Amino acid sequence: MKSRAALAIEAGKPLEVTEVNLDGPREGEVLVEIMATGICHTDEFTRSGADPEGIFPAILGHEGAGIVREIGPGVTSLKPGDHVIPLYTPECRECEYCLHPKTNLCQAIRTTQGQGVMPDGTSRFTTLDGDPVFHYMGTSTFSNFTVMPEIAAAKIREDAPFDMVCYIGCGVTTGIGAVINTAKVEQGSRAIVFGLGGIGLNVIQGLRLAGADQIVGVDINPGKVEMATRFGMTDFVNPAEVEEDLVPYLVNLTKGGADYTFDATGNVQVMRAALESAHKGWGESIIIGVAPAGAEISTRPFQLVTGRSWRGTAFGGARGRTDVPKIVDWYMDGKIEIDPMITHKLSLDRINEGFDLMHEGKSIRAVIEY
Amino acid sequence: MKSRAALAIEAGKPLEVTEVNLDGPREGEVLVEIMATGICHTDEFTRSGADPEGIFPAILGHEGAGIVREIGPGVTSLKPGDHVIPLYTPECRECEYCLHPKTNLCQAIRTTQGQGVMPDGTSRFTTLDGDPVFHYMGTSTFSNFTVMPEIAAAKIREDAPFDMVCYIGCGVTTGIGAVINTAKVEQGSRAIVFGLGGIGLNVIQGLRLAGADQIVGVDINPGKVEMATRFGMTDFVNPAEVEEDLVPYLVNLTKGGADYTFDATGNVQVMRAALESAHKGWGESIIIGVAPAGAEISTRPFQLVTGRSWRGTAFGGARGRTDVPKIVDWYMDGKIEIDPMITHKLSLDRINEGFDLMHEGKSIRAVIEY
Repeated sequence: MKSRAALAIEAGKPLEVTEVNLDGPREGEVLVEIMATGICHTDEFTRSGADPEGIFPAILGHEGAGIVREIGPGVTSLKPGDHVIPLYTPECRECEYCLHPKTNLCQAIRTTQGQGVMPDGTSRFTTLDGDPVFHYMGTSTFSNFTVMPEIAAAKIREDAPFDMVCYIGCGVTTGIGAVINTAKVEQGSRAIVFGLGGIGLNVIQGLRLAGADQIVGVDINPGKVEMATRFGMTDFVNPAEVEEDLVPYLVNLTKGGADYTFDATGNVQVMRAALESAHKGWGESIIIGVAPAGAEISTRPFQLVTGRSWRGTAFGGARGRTDVPKIVDWYMDGKIEIDPMITHKLSLDRINEGFDLMHEGKSIRAVIEY
Repeated sequence: MKSRAALAIEAGKPLEVTEVNLDGPREGEVLVEIMATGICHTDEFTRSGADPEGIFPAILGHEGAGIVREIGPGVTSLKPGDHVIPLYTPECRECEYCLHPKTNLCQAIRTTQGQGVMPDGTSRFTTLDGDPVFHYMGTSTFSNFTVMPEIAAAKIREDAPFDMVCYIGCGVTTGIGAVINTAKVEQGSRAIVFGLGGIGLNVIQGLRLAGADQIVGVDINPGKVEMATRFGMTDFVNPAEVEEDLVPYLVNLTKGGADYTFDATGNVQVMRAALESAHKGWGESIIIGVAPAGAEISTRPFQLVTGRSWRGTAFGGARGRTDVPKIVDWYMDGKIEIDPMITHKLSLDRINEGFDLMHEGKSIRAVIEY
């Protein structure tokens, strides 16, 4: 079949909206009609050429929601008509990782996913000229129709609006999950969130959900204050306006350091500040942001010996097929908000405008509706 | 009263065995007759002048055992005749830290302890000429008699031999506690221990106690193999004999990386190798060793984002008054061994020989018997 898609032809170039050929689902795969997809910094990381593992041409996009239209042989957990959110972190429930209580990093299809192909080693996408096109993160939601393994699709309720819950495919789950699954924040905690973009806001609403008493947001853009406050921020700190060093200022503001700190910037200097503003004795710092290739974090080991922990999270520690449907329920039940964060909706034709909005800091999330 | 003591006159000089004046215990303090004390690398760190916080003249020593001889006003939990192990990490059971479930770093007397004085701001020690002499780590076990706060003495059973259980005052508790209290190692785990000195051996026996299935020891000195094997090491790796890079070698040896790794070297490059040889998804790396002043650890944040945790431990995460008596019981019940690690016994007059033995790598622990 044919599908309209935004094709990343080569690193650094705008996406090209065009038709592509799509083969049907093979053994263990499903064909999904994507109804909506967010545009995330990780897509831009790859599009721009900054991602050392980026391969081209490819169809990017990893934050979608849609409807199963066809299933391949052997698929048992999904059927045509099911509403799903594609998972760039799948959940096979059989590998060593899925069976380990401390991780969500299912490895069942990791190698082929990293190579831009389906588990059988081939791509379902080709150009109209018949040239190969790679998948991206196993999801390729910048195509109206896409194929993915059954284990990489979370079945969700049918009354959930695609243009909102697509954000649960990455940003919402990453931010809330970092709080709930990775940090396991307790009632009454003090926390600091560095970076009030799309991930940081979701960390903040995760902290509100977990019952944190103090939620400090740190950002150099004071334009973020209103939205962050709406999601639960109790204190705002603009490092550009702090006259002393930032870390002692934050330690003082949180009465000795925060119980939990989160980096949602990807800046390794900020990651260090996040660790060092965690409370002596028990403070935990969680890295969410993706750093530039080759960048390193550092600190004095004394910071750890005196009781701080340095950790990280990917996809919010969520096991997608299990946890994503629950987060959709939380949204539908009003426990969490998404609507105010979807600041722009665009058609696929205007996808490059969505990247521009992100660059300019004008959008929290721009969503493409097919 | 007078007490024989080994006085650290100034940084870098040998200790001077002499008599000193000792005032009796004041409010909340106890006078302890030290019966035996180990010599630890931390004493040498300060004696040598490497410790930026070292102050002189002082009476070093923090790994002792003895008998309470006199109590000051208000002391309720100890009485003359009680056998005790002095605690450089006290346990007041009242401060914010003691009341927090995740730390053992009681802060009740931290400031004065760091200044080499008792909580009232004064020292009990003076030279025979009347010049002030500082306490060290709140314990000063290189004096036959010493004064410490009541909250810095763990009462232990009276049938435990001083010349063995003094080691529980630091090395044994630090190593075993890192496994039991900090890492909380589970049955069947795989672990790697970097550095097979006095701390590393106790990490190894802690791992055996916790039921680890694979206990890899890493050291550049093959002379450590026999003792480490006796304490539970299952695999030995000499980095000098590994032809490939050490980290991938260790990852392969532990079938994907260790569940837990421990640095007992104080070398920041080794700390990095320890983190990176922990298992993707769930591996935890614990820093025990004390690094040189100013040294920093570093790694790519990707190591944490893909599920490894970087943590540290001080005094094995043990709450001294609560946990030290239990570890003494474990020794008396044969659950753990200490005797083979006490390789040398010396009189106080020969204390500088004990430091030499440590430098030359000839001792695991040299103990001074008064």
